[in-house]
Amino acid sequence: MFGFENMKISSSDATKPVINLDQGDPTALQEYWMSTKMKERCVVVIPGWELMSYFSDKTNVCWFLQQDLAEAIKALHCEIGNAATEERYIVVGNGSSQLCQAALFALSSLSEDKPLSIVAAVPYYSTYEEEASYVQSQLYKWEGDARTFNKPGPYIEMVTSPNNPDGTIREPVVNRGGKVIYDFAYYWPHYTPITHRQDHDIMLFTFSKIAGHAGSRIGWALVKDIEVAKKMVQYLTINSIGVSKESQIRATVILNELTKSCRIKSESFFEYGNEKVKSRWESLRWVVDKTGDTFTLPDYPLAFCNFFGKSSSTYPAFAWLGCNEDKDLESLLKEKYVLTRGGERCGSDKKYVRVNMLGPNKDFEDFLNRLLTIKYPNCFEGIPCFEP
Amino acid sequence: MFGFENMKISSSDATKPVINLDQGDPTALQEYWMSTKMKERCVVVIPGWELMSYFSDKTNVCWFLQQDLAEAIKALHCEIGNAATEERYIVVGNGSSQLCQAALFALSSLSEDKPLSIVAAVPYYSTYEEEASYVQSQLYKWEGDARTFNKPGPYIEMVTSPNNPDGTIREPVVNRGGKVIYDFAYYWPHYTPITHRQDHDIMLFTFSKIAGHAGSRIGWALVKDIEVAKKMVQYLTINSIGVSKESQIRATVILNELTKSCRIKSESFFEYGNEKVKSRWESLRWVVDKTGDTFTLPDYPLAFCNFFGKSSSTYPAFAWLGCNEDKDLESLLKEKYVLTRGGERCGSDKKYVRVNMLGPNKDFEDFLNRLLTIKYPNCFEGIPCFEP
Repeated sequence: MFGFENMKISSSDATKPVINLDQGDPTALQEYWMSTKMKERCVVVIPGWELMSYFSDKTNVCWFLQQDLAEAIKALHCEIGNAATEERYIVVGNGSSQLCQAALFALSSLSEDKPLSIVAAVPYYSTYEEEASYVQSQLYKWEGDARTFNKPGPYIEMVTSPNNPDGTIREPVVNRGGKVIYDFAYYWPHYTPITHRQDHDIMLFTFSKIAGHAGSRIGWALVKDIEVAKKMVQYLTINSIGVSKESQIRATVILNELTKSCRIKSESFFEYGNEKVKSRWESLRWVVDKTGDTFTLPDYPLAFCNFFGKSSSTYPAFAWLGCNEDKDLESLLKEKYVLTRGGERCGSDKKYVRVNMLGPNKDFEDFLNRLLTIKYPNCFEGIPCFEP
Repeated sequence: MFGFENMKISSSDATKPVINLDQGDPTALQEYWMSTKMKERCVVVIPGWELMSYFSDKTNVCWFLQQDLAEAIKALHCEIGNAATEERYIVVGNGSSQLCQAALFALSSLSEDKPLSIVAAVPYYSTYEEEASYVQSQLYKWEGDARTFNKPGPYIEMVTSPNNPDGTIREPVVNRGGKVIYDFAYYWPHYTPITHRQDHDIMLFTFSKIAGHAGSRIGWALVKDIEVAKKMVQYLTINSIGVSKESQIRATVILNELTKSCRIKSESFFEYGNEKVKSRWESLRWVVDKTGDTFTLPDYPLAFCNFFGKSSSTYPAFAWLGCNEDKDLESLLKEKYVLTRGGERCGSDKKYVRVNMLGPNKDFEDFLNRLLTIKYPNCFEGIPCFEP
């Protein structure tokens, strides 16, 4: 959760400003959109009389989906080669969180056994647990780690690949014929090699993590079964009577620009994004290396990326930072005024934290310096120990 | 709900085009925004690099609320005099439906007794029943008509005033110390006299029914208790990680225009809106009168409107049309290719239907003509029996 109410430290009572790397706010990507070349592009103009109806297309199962957005989504997936869009229903949501809940509702409503068990392999995206628990639905029940799950009967497994928080490439682990919701928020070429076109029954994507436009709250699901799609639309209809038209037309413009940019290497958003996260990962690995055996980071294998046409590693949007001793790393970093998400919230150990890798440049640099001060207390801010 | 999948008739298999007056799509109000004077105003321009963060104001309880929108909301309520905004938290939502669910979550989470009973006096807004039931929450339970509710213990009563579907001015009916959620979607001067400034613990408003911008999915709650506001924000955080920033800035521009327009009578949106719905009501009453004792409509008392400075009646956004015989009015109208919401869905009788009064001009005129043909079968479309 965002949970500011529980934040124990704040800029006002600290000598150092607090760096918040708990949430995955992707503001680092803003610099692409602010560049001289891009600044005048992708401007959206909406007159007062436009987009007034609830409806976008009454003949579509997802009656509140703008047709242009559907086309833009299909064009981008086709250009990147990361997901099959043929013979699928596109369901748009207020971010992919809402779509995940719509999918839980759809699959459990259509299941004879209720409550349906919901599982995800540890470490998992902490929000899944909250999404599956907060309204205490009798349709489904959070059952935690997929690896130790042994309840008989139907279930839903959440598979996030690359995984949030640890960036690993994942497949389902239960494999007993249950339903799987694939969360492909990070299956884009700036984060990970596009090794094949994903082709599953329910696949979730989010606008936030592609181009960095988290404020628009746009996500989409590619859904094979019309009955599942209809039930998801029913959820979205009751929950929020659809999705902001303004955000939909803005997402359309920006997704179309992304698709177009792929064709000119010097302008390619994904080239830029890949360079950006890669360089941050190199800096973080340099710092972790300098601290000896204090911290750990996962290693990612090389794989051939069909989109870039070359071998590459994974550069996740979050770092899954660990410490070698049996410490509470979240608390340790909090003492340095760095907010991260503790591993226990992801079903894992408190010696791990999830760190947002897409925050502002200054925050990221300050974070690296503060990491160094844990090992070298005399290396303090102001004397830049780390220069990227 | 919107339920197109259950629609039995469609334009393609009918000789007459289907008129959909089931949903409350407020497109009639679009003509104000398309007028020569207004067409160039309220244009929103959003560059590609703007509004990228999840956050609007981290110091606000509602951290995803744009500060400018909060100011615009307060200014409009102050100008209209319909609700107190002092010492209240503003929570923005993806429409007021989502906020209603956030309020159910908040009040039931904070209650010791669960599930909390949810009631509303018949006839009620059919969506309340769906909102309180669809995820089968263990926090709260739909208990139907508030007038016959006699379960002991805490409860939540939904009070909609003017009421959807029947336009009556309402107060709570249970009055046993339970919580009340006031839905003031229609407490605006074009629909009803503003007799006093509402001042309650939880009040819901929606952008859709004020200016007609349903596609933006913006609603807000005015909430007195910080703990309730925090819990509502928690719901919105898990449910959709906030609300579209694009819609928020567009709503800001349009609400500010509404406030400004109040000061020039010839430009006033509320003068325009009042004329519009009033003239539709006069036409409908003329037709109902012409059909003798076939149909019924509620009568509304005159009251002094502080905003217009004169006595006025209520002109609801929906007509609660009844038939004097014991017929299924929804089916009867469906035979005439007019879709309405049957009274049973509102906890009432099938001899009533809810009819959207804010559809396009052509639809409304055709509807009136088709109503006449029920009484006078030889009066068919093409020979305009009704001319407004």
